[in-house]
Amino acid sequence: MSGFVSPLAPQTFATMPALRGVRMATAAAGIKYKNRTDVLLMVFDRPASVAGVFTRSKCPSAPVDFCRANLPHGVARALVVNSGNANAFTGKKGKAATELTAKSAAAAVGCSEREIYLASTGVIGEPLDATKFAGVLNDMNSAATGDFWFEAAKAIMTTDTYPKVATRSAEIGGVKVTINGIAKGAGMIAPDMATMLSFVATDADIAPSALQALLSEGVEPTFNSVTVDSDTSTSDTLMLFATGAASADGQDRVESASDPRLEAFRNALNDLLKDLALQVVRDGEGARKMVEVTVVGAESDDAAKRIALSIANSPLVKTAVAGEDANWGRIVMAVGKSGEMADRDRLAIWFGDVRVAVEGERDPGYSEEAATAVMQRQDIPVKVDIGIGTGKATVWTCDLTKEYVAINGDYRS
Amino acid sequence: MSGFVSPLAPQTFATMPALRGVRMATAAAGIKYKNRTDVLLMVFDRPASVAGVFTRSKCPSAPVDFCRANLPHGVARALVVNSGNANAFTGKKGKAATELTAKSAAAAVGCSEREIYLASTGVIGEPLDATKFAGVLNDMNSAATGDFWFEAAKAIMTTDTYPKVATRSAEIGGVKVTINGIAKGAGMIAPDMATMLSFVATDADIAPSALQALLSEGVEPTFNSVTVDSDTSTSDTLMLFATGAASADGQDRVESASDPRLEAFRNALNDLLKDLALQVVRDGEGARKMVEVTVVGAESDDAAKRIALSIANSPLVKTAVAGEDANWGRIVMAVGKSGEMADRDRLAIWFGDVRVAVEGERDPGYSEEAATAVMQRQDIPVKVDIGIGTGKATVWTCDLTKEYVAINGDYRS
Repeated sequence: MSGFVSPLAPQTFATMPALRGVRMATAAAGIKYKNRTDVLLMVFDRPASVAGVFTRSKCPSAPVDFCRANLPHGVARALVVNSGNANAFTGKKGKAATELTAKSAAAAVGCSEREIYLASTGVIGEPLDATKFAGVLNDMNSAATGDFWFEAAKAIMTTDTYPKVATRSAEIGGVKVTINGIAKGAGMIAPDMATMLSFVATDADIAPSALQALLSEGVEPTFNSVTVDSDTSTSDTLMLFATGAASADGQDRVESASDPRLEAFRNALNDLLKDLALQVVRDGEGARKMVEVTVVGAESDDAAKRIALSIANSPLVKTAVAGEDANWGRIVMAVGKSGEMADRDRLAIWFGDVRVAVEGERDPGYSEEAATAVMQRQDIPVKVDIGIGTGKATVWTCDLTKEYVAINGDYRS
Repeated sequence: MSGFVSPLAPQTFATMPALRGVRMATAAAGIKYKNRTDVLLMVFDRPASVAGVFTRSKCPSAPVDFCRANLPHGVARALVVNSGNANAFTGKKGKAATELTAKSAAAAVGCSEREIYLASTGVIGEPLDATKFAGVLNDMNSAATGDFWFEAAKAIMTTDTYPKVATRSAEIGGVKVTINGIAKGAGMIAPDMATMLSFVATDADIAPSALQALLSEGVEPTFNSVTVDSDTSTSDTLMLFATGAASADGQDRVESASDPRLEAFRNALNDLLKDLALQVVRDGEGARKMVEVTVVGAESDDAAKRIALSIANSPLVKTAVAGEDANWGRIVMAVGKSGEMADRDRLAIWFGDVRVAVEGERDPGYSEEAATAVMQRQDIPVKVDIGIGTGKATVWTCDLTKEYVAINGDYRS
């Protein structure tokens, strides 16, 4: 919020088309910040199919509880998101705040509270004054417009240094549909802040159960494969809405995720989810480098992912990256501590195209210079071949810098 | 090594008594450093009982493999430790280096290679030139003396800012015995077996199997309950030697760890292990604060420990501690992400004696001032009551500071 923008930010932002069936507005409700928008209302004029995946935290926020309870109904008419306060660890007051917000939103939009979805991001443990929403939601609904994605992405930022938007299109049965998404998150990719929130909408006509299956499958290699600091938020929320407006162009409603007509849509959706997820990592608190960790040759894909995350979450690996130090010994350490099957004497490690270790020791052709040249890049690919199976996975992270410590050592004050 | 000493260092070092049956010498073999001692030889003039616990890393160092292979023989005549090179991920060359070192040491001391134990610490992946030991071990054996514990602790330091020593005494069957120990470690410290090197010796006469049982039991609430950075070393080694010299005073050899005569010894040993483990945390890289995390009311002791480690390893908790920020929302986050059973609405959290949260929300009597006063201390107790069971555990960690990033962003060069 200080004007600083991550050096890893995209050079240009996607031009976000309006998406039929979705209107949005933002407002400054004064939740925490002064003189900035802190509430987003997304309205679906006709009931939209809805899918969601949420934090696995055992201490989820009140809005996460609220969304989980509404999700089985499968239909959304509005989404209310606020920044400045996460409404997490707020006890009965937190539940009352979600109920009051939903009531205000339902009255403004003219629907059931079952059709309202909520997300909050910001400080944990502070009671959220939901009466502040009551005053603005009616006006927001009147003002809401379709061409508003970039503003929406800005309204939900906290420690983010840039808004995160992405758009894709695909055909379903010959009819073109659009997918738009926004995300926020920079740290606590994991609570206090940098809760990860992402909202994706499409004009495709897809049934809720199919939508949920697509989202649950798509989240694994994308949002569930990025880590800034290994700290999982109490509020992580990824939602996908399908307005069905493309039915006006003759798109037949799709009822099952295994329907072959969804192939292009699935690819476009997964590509968009990956785009947004990587934008979150590229805005990692204090990040100056992006690291792509690929593990191959593991016992299974799950094992590969656990090894990749062990590497991506290791403070020693991340500080080495910050220092542009081709310290592959720390990669070995992280493989070893993962607990997954590994045979030291079959391990091989690459930085970019430079193989630095093979068969359990330093590569005979090792060149410090060549390895260091890779570390000096902004985007650093790390590959590890475990050498015992066919399991593979890729995860993304950023470096651990003094700025991360500075940002998080003095957040609340 | 720069003259900087951790602000958490002990005010005074223990005066280490000589221990009957143990002689030590150090030498400058030029493994990596110039003009500093980098090899320690510990000699047992009569065969000592030996016990060991090692890293659980799947990629252990060559010396760890070597010690594991010798341990079933149960008897030690010498220990060789070097700093400057970990002899880890060094393939066949690494194995050859351990064999050559053991051969040289066995020749110098006059024993079998089965009775030699080895440990190495330093850079990973560099071949270790073991011929450098051959030249110094004979002289070291001649020069070795009993009153040398402090010098021994200094010889095995790497990024440590102070040597770590501890001594205790106890009676076994009315005979006084002594326990002396040294340790090293400051980074790559996480609780999965003794995350560093530590060597403990006693003049008690205890059989190897009993010694191993005592050590395996003692390591859990001590070395396996400390974490600096969640990164588990490839080389972690904790060994316990019993020279049996106290038999000269009439101490009858103890064959079983469940022998009631060991009660005082067990307590003294565990106390010494905790002392050394906490000294390692207090020398955590970049540390300025020590944090004791106690979890009570969990589903089981194991669950309590996993929650405590989730808190102690959280970068956001550790940076908040560095910033003297009573940010209990991050404690909630870390409880939530641990995956262990928790009920948000039963959780209570204390900093020192100040209860900051209770029953799933901010304590009604919360005082930011009182909480901040605790955070400004050097030693910070954090307590979490999960409120669902009787499981409890305590772990220790340090804060995450810019200095940690600086130290590890530029370690190899």
